[in-house]
Amino acid sequence: MFIAEGSINVTDFIKSGINVIGLFATDKWMQTNKQNIANKNLTLVSTKELKKISALSSPSEVLAILSLPITNEVNNISIENLTLALDSISDPGNLGTIIRTADWFGIKQIFCSSNTVDAYNPKVVQATMGSLARVEVIHTDLKKLFTNKPKNLPIFGAVLNGEPITKFKPQENGIILIGSEAHGISNELLPYITQKITIPSVNQNLSNNLESLNASVANAIICYALCKQ
Amino acid sequence: MFIAEGSINVTDFIKSGINVIGLFATDKWMQTNKQNIANKNLTLVSTKELKKISALSSPSEVLAILSLPITNEVNNISIENLTLALDSISDPGNLGTIIRTADWFGIKQIFCSSNTVDAYNPKVVQATMGSLARVEVIHTDLKKLFTNKPKNLPIFGAVLNGEPITKFKPQENGIILIGSEAHGISNELLPYITQKITIPSVNQNLSNNLESLNASVANAIICYALCKQ
Repeated sequence: MFIAEGSINVTDFIKSGINVIGLFATDKWMQTNKQNIANKNLTLVSTKELKKISALSSPSEVLAILSLPITNEVNNISIENLTLALDSISDPGNLGTIIRTADWFGIKQIFCSSNTVDAYNPKVVQATMGSLARVEVIHTDLKKLFTNKPKNLPIFGAVLNGEPITKFKPQENGIILIGSEAHGISNELLPYITQKITIPSVNQNLSNNLESLNASVANAIICYALCKQ
Repeated sequence: MFIAEGSINVTDFIKSGINVIGLFATDKWMQTNKQNIANKNLTLVSTKELKKISALSSPSEVLAILSLPITNEVNNISIENLTLALDSISDPGNLGTIIRTADWFGIKQIFCSSNTVDAYNPKVVQATMGSLARVEVIHTDLKKLFTNKPKNLPIFGAVLNGEPITKFKPQENGIILIGSEAHGISNELLPYITQKITIPSVNQNLSNNLESLNASVANAIICYALCKQ
């Protein structure tokens, strides 16, 4: 089970057909969302009660307890679409923003290293703004995943000495590998990269500094450059 | 005065020539940063003491008290470079990430609406990862700024019904206007936009939803598309 809060998150999950274990909402929210919540296990609560059960400092009008989705087989990487692989992302806000951005660019699968923060952590769910209801997020061993991937599927990895991303056209398929906030892509995954890419900096002082772009920002720029629009 | 924490932030500020009121650092940090901190007002502290004065849950090895920089005249917008204007950004992490991204793309000036979160808020400083030492951030009345700007300087504003950003080449100059996380660009600033732009979404369900990209992610994609590299 996991918790989702806020009207956008909760209604997007309900629309996705997820199993709703419990809904706790104010009367006001229930009135404006009647058509979405038929037959759901709803408990009306006051704003004061919601504040007590919420993980947010400013609780919204609804909190849902939902069943964790059953994910596909790990080896089932799409070859009809770009896919993300996240190596040791530790900040919940970054993971949530990456899931949200992936959804915007039509990416349907995200593979996370086992030490990446849990996608169903309440802070991650909050930052996805409903996108977690549409994107499949699978925690797995990325080394195994890359070893068993379809042979011709490219792996794009953002490093310091790669080809400028500005030279690339949108891709049919492939895996975009994003490294951790503090250390970039880990040494054991570097050999699997088939295409090294770099986001050029105008600022010469920064161009040899891995920490100079936030991980979710680097991911957004790479998705923008490589995804079809 | 404001507080900066962490080795990258503090050394980047010291290198920028800012006035250092006080430095509180561990002996270990002092030993490895000797050449940067000559004549600075340094107090050696233990990790335990640093924890007591830090705003971070995991304090690093140094905390600095610095003088707020004296900013230029508000009307002094660069016409040799792109500039950012931020309308009602409320999340400190978003503002910090926007400053960090601007620095990467060579943007040197950011104008913030008066109700945008303070750029010297400790959480913003932290998220800039040193970039605040290189980018000038000015809180001002954006309406006045736009009224008094050089006549031919374009204002690019991200809205729902704009030209796809994919059609644009890097620009010589201009102002990129970024709206708030919850409400986009405010009604009173919309008339000043000279070029409406849109980040196309692959996902048809989302393309009419303003909230579907994080503000710092939208900013990063627009900077990538419009800044020279």
